[in-house]
Amino acid sequence: MRRVLFVLILLFLFVLSASPGLADKKDAEHKKDAELSTARLSPSTQACIACHAQYTPGIVHDWLSSRHSQTTPADAMKKPELERRISADTISEDLAGYVVGCYECHSRNPKKHKDNFEHMGFRINVVVSPDDCRTCHPVEVTQFSGSKKANAIKNLMANPVYHTLVDNVTGVKRIVNGKIITERPSEKTLHESCLGCHGTKIEVKGMKQLVVASGEIIVPDLTNWPNQGVGRENPDGSLGACTACHPRHAFSIEVARKPYTCAQCHEEPDVPAWDVYKESKHGNIFFSKYHEWDMNAVPWTVGKDFKAPTCAVCHNSLIVSPSGAVLAERTHDFGSRMWVRLFGLIYSHPQPVSGDTSVIKNKDGMPLPTTFTGMKASEFLIDKEEQEKRLRSMKSVCNGCHNMDWINGHFAKLASTILETDAMTQAATNLMLEAWSNGIEDKSNPFDEPIEQRWTKQWLFFANSARYASAMTGAPDYASFKHGWWNMTNNIAEMKEMIDLKTSVKDKKATK
Amino acid sequence: MRRVLFVLILLFLFVLSASPGLADKKDAEHKKDAELSTARLSPSTQACIACHAQYTPGIVHDWLSSRHSQTTPADAMKKPELERRISADTISEDLAGYVVGCYECHSRNPKKHKDNFEHMGFRINVVVSPDDCRTCHPVEVTQFSGSKKANAIKNLMANPVYHTLVDNVTGVKRIVNGKIITERPSEKTLHESCLGCHGTKIEVKGMKQLVVASGEIIVPDLTNWPNQGVGRENPDGSLGACTACHPRHAFSIEVARKPYTCAQCHEEPDVPAWDVYKESKHGNIFFSKYHEWDMNAVPWTVGKDFKAPTCAVCHNSLIVSPSGAVLAERTHDFGSRMWVRLFGLIYSHPQPVSGDTSVIKNKDGMPLPTTFTGMKASEFLIDKEEQEKRLRSMKSVCNGCHNMDWINGHFAKLASTILETDAMTQAATNLMLEAWSNGIEDKSNPFDEPIEQRWTKQWLFFANSARYASAMTGAPDYASFKHGWWNMTNNIAEMKEMIDLKTSVKDKKATK
Amino acid sequence: MRRVLFVLILLFLFVLSASPGLADKKDAEHKKDAELSTARLSPSTQACIACHAQYTPGIVHDWLSSRHSQTTPADAMKKPELERRISADTISEDLAGYVVGCYECHSRNPKKHKDNFEHMGFRINVVVSPDDCRTCHPVEVTQFSGSKKANAIKNLMANPVYHTLVDNVTGVKRIVNGKIITERPSEKTLHESCLGCHGTKIEVKGMKQLVVASGEIIVPDLTNWPNQGVGRENPDGSLGACTACHPRHAFSIEVARKPYTCAQCHEEPDVPAWDVYKESKHGNIFFSKYHEWDMNAVPWTVGKDFKAPTCAVCHNSLIVSPSGAVLAERTHDFGSRMWVRLFGLIYSHPQPVSGDTSVIKNKDGMPLPTTFTGMKASEFLIDKEEQEKRLRSMKSVCNGCHNMDWINGHFAKLASTILETDAMTQAATNLMLEAWSNGIEDKSNPFDEPIEQRWTKQWLFFANSARYASAMTGAPDYASFKHGWWNMTNNIAEMKEMIDLKTSVKDKKATK
Repeated sequence: MRRVLFVLILLFLFVLSASPGLADKKDAEHKKDAELSTARLSPSTQACIACHAQYTPGIVHDWLSSRHSQTTPADAMKKPELERRISADTISEDLAGYVVGCYECHSRNPKKHKDNFEHMGFRINVVVSPDDCRTCHPVEVTQFSGSKKANAIKNLMANPVYHTLVDNVTGVKRIVNGKIITERPSEKTLHESCLGCHGTKIEVKGMKQLVVASGEIIVPDLTNWPNQGVGRENPDGSLGACTACHPRHAFSIEVARKPYTCAQCHEEPDVPAWDVYKESKHGNIFFSKYHEWDMNAVPWTVGKDFKAPTCAVCHNSLIVSPSGAVLAERTHDFGSRMWVRLFGLIYSHPQPVSGDTSVIKNKDGMPLPTTFTGMKASEFLIDKEEQEKRLRSMKSVCNGCHNMDWINGHFAKLASTILETDAMTQAATNLMLEAWSNGIEDKSNPFDEPIEQRWTKQWLFFANSARYASAMTGAPDYASFKHGWWNMTNNIAEMKEMIDLKTSVKDKKATK
Repeated sequence: MRRVLFVLILLFLFVLSASPGLADKKDAEHKKDAELSTARLSPSTQACIACHAQYTPGIVHDWLSSRHSQTTPADAMKKPELERRISADTISEDLAGYVVGCYECHSRNPKKHKDNFEHMGFRINVVVSPDDCRTCHPVEVTQFSGSKKANAIKNLMANPVYHTLVDNVTGVKRIVNGKIITERPSEKTLHESCLGCHGTKIEVKGMKQLVVASGEIIVPDLTNWPNQGVGRENPDGSLGACTACHPRHAFSIEVARKPYTCAQCHEEPDVPAWDVYKESKHGNIFFSKYHEWDMNAVPWTVGKDFKAPTCAVCHNSLIVSPSGAVLAERTHDFGSRMWVRLFGLIYSHPQPVSGDTSVIKNKDGMPLPTTFTGMKASEFLIDKEEQEKRLRSMKSVCNGCHNMDWINGHFAKLASTILETDAMTQAATNLMLEAWSNGIEDKSNPFDEPIEQRWTKQWLFFANSARYASAMTGAPDYASFKHGWWNMTNNIAEMKEMIDLKTSVKDKKATK
Repeated sequence: MRRVLFVLILLFLFVLSASPGLADKKDAEHKKDAELSTARLSPSTQACIACHAQYTPGIVHDWLSSRHSQTTPADAMKKPELERRISADTISEDLAGYVVGCYECHSRNPKKHKDNFEHMGFRINVVVSPDDCRTCHPVEVTQFSGSKKANAIKNLMANPVYHTLVDNVTGVKRIVNGKIITERPSEKTLHESCLGCHGTKIEVKGMKQLVVASGEIIVPDLTNWPNQGVGRENPDGSLGACTACHPRHAFSIEVARKPYTCAQCHEEPDVPAWDVYKESKHGNIFFSKYHEWDMNAVPWTVGKDFKAPTCAVCHNSLIVSPSGAVLAERTHDFGSRMWVRLFGLIYSHPQPVSGDTSVIKNKDGMPLPTTFTGMKASEFLIDKEEQEKRLRSMKSVCNGCHNMDWINGHFAKLASTILETDAMTQAATNLMLEAWSNGIEDKSNPFDEPIEQRWTKQWLFFANSARYASAMTGAPDYASFKHGWWNMTNNIAEMKEMIDLKTSVKDKKATK
């Protein structure tokens, strides 16, 4: 096997130097497939590429277009602080001088990785985890690890209320004796739906044979794989998948900064950030003009590199003014500039203190930040002072283009929308409580009957949409008719219509 | 303060000449941040920029990328007529020789501007209105001012039927003694929903203190601000906001010509122009190829600058053939090439004569272009001859690519769709009339009960969608299943289902 | 007339050589409006252009940007096999040496073309059909002609079940004596809806006068024209419209490879390929990075020309690795890499053997691949072996980037989703059967009553959406809440709610 590898490596080096596919630069502006000084690839990575350039060429060439393939950590650390894309203060000598290749990432922390295995003479991990990325990017990984995103599985599945919603939505239904029977959801369907975004738990069940183009190989047998959900539980015990936003194997900052990335999970009807952005003035300017912007620059300069925000501008990028003043520090705790939580819960509320929201207990003893009637579990939520601090940090980004009067006017509208949409949810809750007390639906499971499902739509789809539209400089038609005021109003009317009908039919049964 | 300004101006001039951020041209093709001959900036604008390059750098740099920052009115007037982007015949001497900077726009007509105030030694207006833009663009402002767009607030809010719809959709609902109580909508929610597109009324309540980065300043206290709705009522008494389509501060013709701009307000479910365009062959070609087109050229040449239309091509741009023949004159009255009105009203009808539609009275005495059963208020609508003239003007645009047989075939389909979708609305109206006469819903407010709301969806969401899909060279799947024939058919079936159920329950109550 | 033509030709040649519009190349990278060696235009095409450059300049210039206007068949045939864009082995001498111009395409096979007519001294066809394109592209046309796409009209309209659905959806409804009466759909509405994508039947009714800019001309009077539906029945008896995906008159491979093209017909809610792609990781990477890719290259090299698939990569393009190995052969039978059919039918099933699906008969004698309760008409469907062969061909494309463990894990999820979504349809079917047996709806037409329409949504909109989301590397939020599990679950709950209500009201009527 080693002999074969040696020949393949020679072959690859020849290809690298001779192939017009790699050496040509069709587009001097954009093309990243630069010539590689092979001296800067570690011998192990050369071995990986020697085979994989043949067996999975797409990802090898994707990596060749990446900054990882062009830069050594040692060089990356020499940049001035604001321009640095690496947050480690020191990098071990065996890594510092090589570009960041296959082996550099897939061989980290082998003892912690239950998915570590022998492959063609090398010990590698199948899954690269945030703890592996931490080698060069410790600040980002630490920020991320405390966030709601890192805890995305637990926040959904360890919360009995949400777990009930998940089970009810994704379980197969059968009609048995005229009744709807809901089965437990399969792992595969959870994986394709809720946990596609939230992340799956990857465990090693053992080893297995795999037939590949070159013959048979032995590889770890992983549960719930492949998955790149943002809160994935990795075989090394860490939480998260950096590839959720920096897709393999270019790990591009440009991709992460473009709204298409956030759009994969943050969209209609439950989290319509993308849908609202598209209709907003910011989105209008982005789509019309971003071909002229620099989506790769670090730091990222308002007015110069970009002229309207994408998701990343407001929520996590390092933003500076053309004179170099820092408007916002980089963060990978994506909630850290947010003071209020607009979606996913029955009522809006201050952001939770901990990224792990399964610790919350409200007045009714439920693991929710508010009760069904809106009372807040304040001890688990950030206080007024912290809210104001975060609002100021967001306003500082806005102030890159807008004056303070404009900004204050904008956020005053959002505050009003929050109050009014919570009232619209409250009205729907009152109707559901009536349905329960009339005995036309049963409160033991609040998600499995049609009036309950209309109530769920009120907050999970409609009230949150109106709030998003208000938060993101406006998507007025979306808030009026697409998902918003029309829908909240119509939903309440239809809840009442069905309650009246069902009560009337039930009463007649009773009085007969 | 004057001393500070002087220092800041010197600083700014230094920055302009030295800053690599401004002087570098990363992309010779696209970059508009050209070096500015500071001699062409008015002294007042230099003062504005001296501070705002620091305090709101984003908009300063956006402006630096604009044609306004590169061209003086005197130069703009020298172009051959078809290439002119300025319609004034004369420009006063104090403006003609300077590029169009902050002060040039924000200082116009101070006596008419109730929002005029003293700011750092200068008297400026917060809001720049169409009447200010009129200085250089009088033809466009005059065209716009007579349009339905300029009257967008009145057309919605001064019409009692629409006002009832608005109130019912956007008012907060409370459940009181089992009944739905609808509150009056708040100004903030109107502002975030309907008036976000239609425009708000901006009034000056007085002056107020504002905390900004540099300390405290005194500014006008405006109602319903910020807003850039197309029919905005401005503090100088004028109607409209040019920034609705030419967003600040690049005021780009490219942005206005791209469909993302129109998409902000003209979209699903009530005005699905954008949604239909995306699915049309024209949209397909635009999205696939526009990176090769010239979206900035004036005049705009079919086949050369663009190869498929965007919204602007058909509705308002100056279009010429490669040999220079004018296919369509530029207009900023966006209805002026349209002979029939497809959306927003119960039935299709000829375009109204006046952009102010609140003057209309139909046979039932209502301010609508048709009665509930479809009879037209013809004296307020354009006549056959005017319809044909406008249709010819549209066909002239189509003829840039399509032959007359193709064009005639296309518009014959639209004419048929209009008749049939109006019949589908008529069927829903008949069902609603039945519900009213059966006493299961109450006609005093035609928008607040669920069968009425299904009727509203029939014309406001579904019939109009099928018409749009027909008008814009086809979005057949949209018209079939997304919003269109399936929905109209299913909606009628569900209206009937609920009427039968409710009537049956009511009858039993009565016969007991 | 001939004299006029001669002058126009001279004029055109002058324009071609002198016009800065044609000669300038604004963008050396992208601009295809190259100088034309007029010697390579056939005299007939020169005559066409002489007039049409004036009368329909848009399409002339679109063609000028095409490969057709730059290349002669003789030159196209000289390319190495993998790079050839022409599949004919021989081209007749009268065509080989001229570029592919107006006359070359619009004059083919005049005897078969019932739409052939005399126009300005030339005999031409209005409609260019696949059989005309076959002159140079015989392999593609033969592949296409056996596909489901080519049979798209018959597959819809010659199937009595589907025909009933079509009639019910698109027929105008009237309310007569309180009952819903459905009229037969008009040809124009069929043309604007279902047949917009499936294709119309183009027949020649006779000749007619047409008023055009130059006066009156006599042209064929065609039914159902214009249309570019993929299964169009042409006046020469052939099936299909190449322009459905290669829009006139650039006939660009780039346009066909971009997902916007497929999106015109394959979209929400019945065929949400586009909607799912947009939310997938592949879509995310495409939208973020395609400006750097080569969408025109033949062959198309994974990793080099593109880094994530569009529709064409997986379904029909010739894909090679950077070393030149063929990962997938080109095909214009778009089902030929697919082993299972996910949409459009009540239950998933193996792909049909024949592209003409009207030949299928199931156990109930219906022309459907399964019965209403899911039993497969296996003799009309491909067998296990063929399914596995096709799955392997698809995996070979995936393997361009992904390892086999990843790929197997992905398709195992899809297999599970197929089973579970079919079970969700089965549950809805059982509820509908209950409604029929209870007598609350009537089974003679399975599409015209509201519970039946809820059943239709279950498979036509929701189950298929969940399957698409599973098939295309994941659109988890789409499958959870947009169109998928939430909707299937909620729809079953609402079907049950209405059945219970209507049964209860009916029973009371009966017991009175």
